[in-house]
Amino acid sequence: MRQKLFVAALMLALVSSSATALHRGERSRPQSATKTLVERLGYPRDAKLLIVHADDLGVAHSVNSAAIKAFESGLVSSGSIMVPCPWLPEIAVYARAHPDADLGLHLTLTSEWSPYRWGPVLSKERVPSLLDTSGYLYSSESEAAAHVDLKEVEAEIRAQIARARALGIQPTHLDSHMGTLYQSKALFEILVRVARENKLPFRVSRDWFSRAQFMPSLLGPDDLVLDKTISIEPNVAPVDWARFYTDEIKNLPPGVTDMIVHLAFADEEMKGVTSGHPDWGAEWRQRDFNFVTSDAFRKLLRENNVKLITWREIGKLIGKT
Amino acid sequence: MRQKLFVAALMLALVSSSATALHRGERSRPQSATKTLVERLGYPRDAKLLIVHADDLGVAHSVNSAAIKAFESGLVSSGSIMVPCPWLPEIAVYARAHPDADLGLHLTLTSEWSPYRWGPVLSKERVPSLLDTSGYLYSSESEAAAHVDLKEVEAEIRAQIARARALGIQPTHLDSHMGTLYQSKALFEILVRVARENKLPFRVSRDWFSRAQFMPSLLGPDDLVLDKTISIEPNVAPVDWARFYTDEIKNLPPGVTDMIVHLAFADEEMKGVTSGHPDWGAEWRQRDFNFVTSDAFRKLLRENNVKLITWREIGKLIGKT
Repeated sequence: MRQKLFVAALMLALVSSSATALHRGERSRPQSATKTLVERLGYPRDAKLLIVHADDLGVAHSVNSAAIKAFESGLVSSGSIMVPCPWLPEIAVYARAHPDADLGLHLTLTSEWSPYRWGPVLSKERVPSLLDTSGYLYSSESEAAAHVDLKEVEAEIRAQIARARALGIQPTHLDSHMGTLYQSKALFEILVRVARENKLPFRVSRDWFSRAQFMPSLLGPDDLVLDKTISIEPNVAPVDWARFYTDEIKNLPPGVTDMIVHLAFADEEMKGVTSGHPDWGAEWRQRDFNFVTSDAFRKLLRENNVKLITWREIGKLIGKT
Repeated sequence: MRQKLFVAALMLALVSSSATALHRGERSRPQSATKTLVERLGYPRDAKLLIVHADDLGVAHSVNSAAIKAFESGLVSSGSIMVPCPWLPEIAVYARAHPDADLGLHLTLTSEWSPYRWGPVLSKERVPSLLDTSGYLYSSESEAAAHVDLKEVEAEIRAQIARARALGIQPTHLDSHMGTLYQSKALFEILVRVARENKLPFRVSRDWFSRAQFMPSLLGPDDLVLDKTISIEPNVAPVDWARFYTDEIKNLPPGVTDMIVHLAFADEEMKGVTSGHPDWGAEWRQRDFNFVTSDAFRKLLRENNVKLITWREIGKLIGKT
């Protein structure tokens, strides 16, 4: 989830101001007319609910291994899978063996690491607009957004969902790798439509609306909207990693927050994959892994009355008022 | 190059009998009416010429890294690239930066590692007979040989060659991953035809003929045939690795021999790729790497008057009598 400039831009507006986020959450709160998402999930209105979410499963063995280890720690509650990636079969084995694991699909329209790449699930003739000149998916979400044909996007993400199911993955939610499907109203509309048809919740957060004003116009009362997203960005120095997350948790407002992390080991494979790209690189992902599997994080959650939840719980609200 | 049972069977008949191989080489020797391949290459008839050849480039970062390091040692003279694999772009960067490197194409019709897989270069609709039920290339060369449509095979290997060239790889030779194109006369005929049209030499060795009698019938006087192939097989215990190669080199007959090795580091990625499969697995490849980059191997070659050559030198004979 490199170069997710759009999401990064959204985040930067919010990172340092949880009070603002709280205020915004209070103002625009109830998606059903009377209850907040927290209340619909059966918690008191002031509960602080957190999804700790590992993105990018399937991209590399290092990512799969770190995510599985993090799930076992009990401190990472959810993750999402990149269906077009070569290590999909490995994470599919895990999904089949752990049917209660909270695994969604990280719908993928980009292939961002230069030495190691992948193409779409559908054949290249079916989705030519999704490919760069070398025949892989585009390297960045902005290139993808600028070139893709919307019908081909919809066909490809439907194919990714079908392929996951064929491999025994029963996704609990949908989101978008590098935020490509959040790049425009037309792309977001596809995500919303496909998610609704599949009766799956999808990642969308109220704290994005001020920077993506098309979002609320596409959402209805039955769509489930998170209150806040936490995602560390390149403006945080490596030495400040734990401090960033600690501050976020200490200042977490009531509501449902998705804390998006990128887990891997800083091993040779991951250094190779992310070669020359420290942002969302091997060391970055090792730092994320170290923090979210630490006793310090466990203690922090406990001391701040933060409860971990999953997308599966959110998905159960679909179809209920 | 796992489960290459056909090639393995060929090897087993020859591994312990270099005298027999020499005898066979002597009997059937000149592919041009008067000169052996060694002589055509400009060496005395009794010269011992060796290609030390790394298979499987492009399959994994670990394989690329080990092969590149081995090339730098000067003791591995050649290698071949798997075009459909995800790490192709990394080895293509190396190929473009090292135009004199002796890099061929390891034409790929199989995807043999269960947690980590790839599909064809052509779209799935174009080559449906090349795919297993999960939509990847077949896991074994025997499954592939049993199911593939020959026209689709030819289209796919032509596409692999075109894709390599589009990425700036100028292949010096062709061979076949897991020996799939050596599984039947019809498959071998495709390799021969495509190689001739591309004016590229292809891996074929005189010591295979007794087990693949269709081969000589398809070869003409202009095809360049090696005298011998060395490829370590699962019947060699890990502790006997150096002894196997040492015996092979000490008993090397005059002629051109292709010593096929599988290089990688036994790191987490490679252990993941080859999980549960020690044959041609991570430790196997580390042992190959350790031996062929060792001072012992360098000394062995020198003491036995073995000269390293490349496929590029062989390819220069094409079109010459």
